[in-house]
Amino acid sequence: MNTRTNTINSVAVIGGTHGNEFSGIYLLRKWQQNPTLIIRDSFSTQTVFANPKAFEENKRYLDCDLNRQFSLDDLNNPELANYEQSRAKAINLQVGPKGNAKTDFIIDLHNTTSNMGPTLILLQSDAFNRKMGAYVKAKMPEAVVVLEDQSTVEEHYFLSSITKQGVIVEVGPQSQSVLRQDVLDWMEEMTQHILDYVELHNTGSLPTLPASYEAFKYEETLKLPEDDKGERIGMVHRNIQDADFKPIRSGDPVFTLFDGKEICWIGDYEAYPHFINEAAYYDNNLAMSLAKKVIVEV
Amino acid sequence: MNTRTNTINSVAVIGGTHGNEFSGIYLLRKWQQNPTLIIRDSFSTQTVFANPKAFEENKRYLDCDLNRQFSLDDLNNPELANYEQSRAKAINLQVGPKGNAKTDFIIDLHNTTSNMGPTLILLQSDAFNRKMGAYVKAKMPEAVVVLEDQSTVEEHYFLSSITKQGVIVEVGPQSQSVLRQDVLDWMEEMTQHILDYVELHNTGSLPTLPASYEAFKYEETLKLPEDDKGERIGMVHRNIQDADFKPIRSGDPVFTLFDGKEICWIGDYEAYPHFINEAAYYDNNLAMSLAKKVIVEV
Repeated sequence: MNTRTNTINSVAVIGGTHGNEFSGIYLLRKWQQNPTLIIRDSFSTQTVFANPKAFEENKRYLDCDLNRQFSLDDLNNPELANYEQSRAKAINLQVGPKGNAKTDFIIDLHNTTSNMGPTLILLQSDAFNRKMGAYVKAKMPEAVVVLEDQSTVEEHYFLSSITKQGVIVEVGPQSQSVLRQDVLDWMEEMTQHILDYVELHNTGSLPTLPASYEAFKYEETLKLPEDDKGERIGMVHRNIQDADFKPIRSGDPVFTLFDGKEICWIGDYEAYPHFINEAAYYDNNLAMSLAKKVIVEV
Repeated sequence: MNTRTNTINSVAVIGGTHGNEFSGIYLLRKWQQNPTLIIRDSFSTQTVFANPKAFEENKRYLDCDLNRQFSLDDLNNPELANYEQSRAKAINLQVGPKGNAKTDFIIDLHNTTSNMGPTLILLQSDAFNRKMGAYVKAKMPEAVVVLEDQSTVEEHYFLSSITKQGVIVEVGPQSQSVLRQDVLDWMEEMTQHILDYVELHNTGSLPTLPASYEAFKYEETLKLPEDDKGERIGMVHRNIQDADFKPIRSGDPVFTLFDGKEICWIGDYEAYPHFINEAAYYDNNLAMSLAKKVIVEV
């Protein structure tokens, strides 16, 4: 990002960072055939198919999660040489390098098996992003904004942290390795609004935006119940399943053990679960993320 | 099955035929810890974890779909020696052999990513199965019965065709590699009703059953739209997504192409789609199965 003028000159739209999240992959195909759909007058747009081999093999990744390989240390460590670690370095060369990137803005397209609807994940809450959230929500009332600004962008290890400005578009529910039309349409619509926002930002023509809006700020992650040996002994409670962004309070049941017992959440705030029962997080026995509801001032 | 007395003396409950369909795998664990749950007085019950390596690798299968390896020819062909082909032979030895099986009845537990609810799939519509469908539906009104009796049991290549009597319990929607409590509970309940039915059948104590009930008889499979090169050019129409067992009529849209065009189904019957957008069938570009609604006389 050119810090003198604050203008976004170049945008990279990334699909297929996870090979079994199909919406972004098929949207890239569509846009490669009809580039005018993602072109705007004030900036250039390129598309990047981040993990083509994982898509070929119909998996999230071959060796490790590509969307965790973009810390500066890892990008600069030549010994990290498996497929995704190598793809991370190649993508960093193409749109980065991180810290001094030739690209100004990344839109990274993801699906979740959780019932999150069209979600815009922001890695920082600067004025540019706060306004973007307001613009997207004004255009698309069903959109949800999640703030994962617990660390600086540079400290993040996500692909979209290569550039100083970047967002993750996360849309579900969609099973891995399928395409749902509702999910595809949501992702396409949200991406269009983001590109429009950048154009309006660049040309100083943003409409009047609401003074504030509701968003969800990441707070913590809950693990699935395990026994002493680390074996899973329960599952997400049926009350919580599909209830992403619905509040829970201390004492509400969140897990059901296989022996029938219920486990309640104990906390000192009203929590908003999301990424509930996300299939890809089973590797790490993660059950859901919890957020606090916050008001974002524009 | 002992044809003199028509008694079921031994039952095998199979889980994990597909390694990323978790409900059956976790139910087996539960039942192995509490065997009384699946024991009845008039028959013996064993559990079989069909594809443990696929579960370990969190995949449907390693080399080929295990639930397509049980044709008599393939079971008797020593050259078919990959992992699933070998597992098929081992399972056939354990509960079969097909055509002269020591086990009388198989319950094979499956999940689907489609919105099919708790579905009982019958591979033949003999009196025993017709009554079983009536019993299960009477006990569990949300249950759906599907007849896949287009060929004889012996001609089928499903695991449950090892024995003369066998059923598939197919429950969804559940993403691959996750556990949903609602889906797990449905599968457990349906399995319990089937075991109860066998017990009541054996002891001649079946209650009075309805004279007839609605079921769905498999008719044909629709493929996703492809271009000349076999590349996918469309997806399941949003009207059809999640609408398993809801009728469609000739002229109703079933696919949306990526260029926005709609493709309508043309047929001469009222069709009931199911297995809609099942993730595992993407390998073969399958979009959904179509059934006719039929009345089963008990």
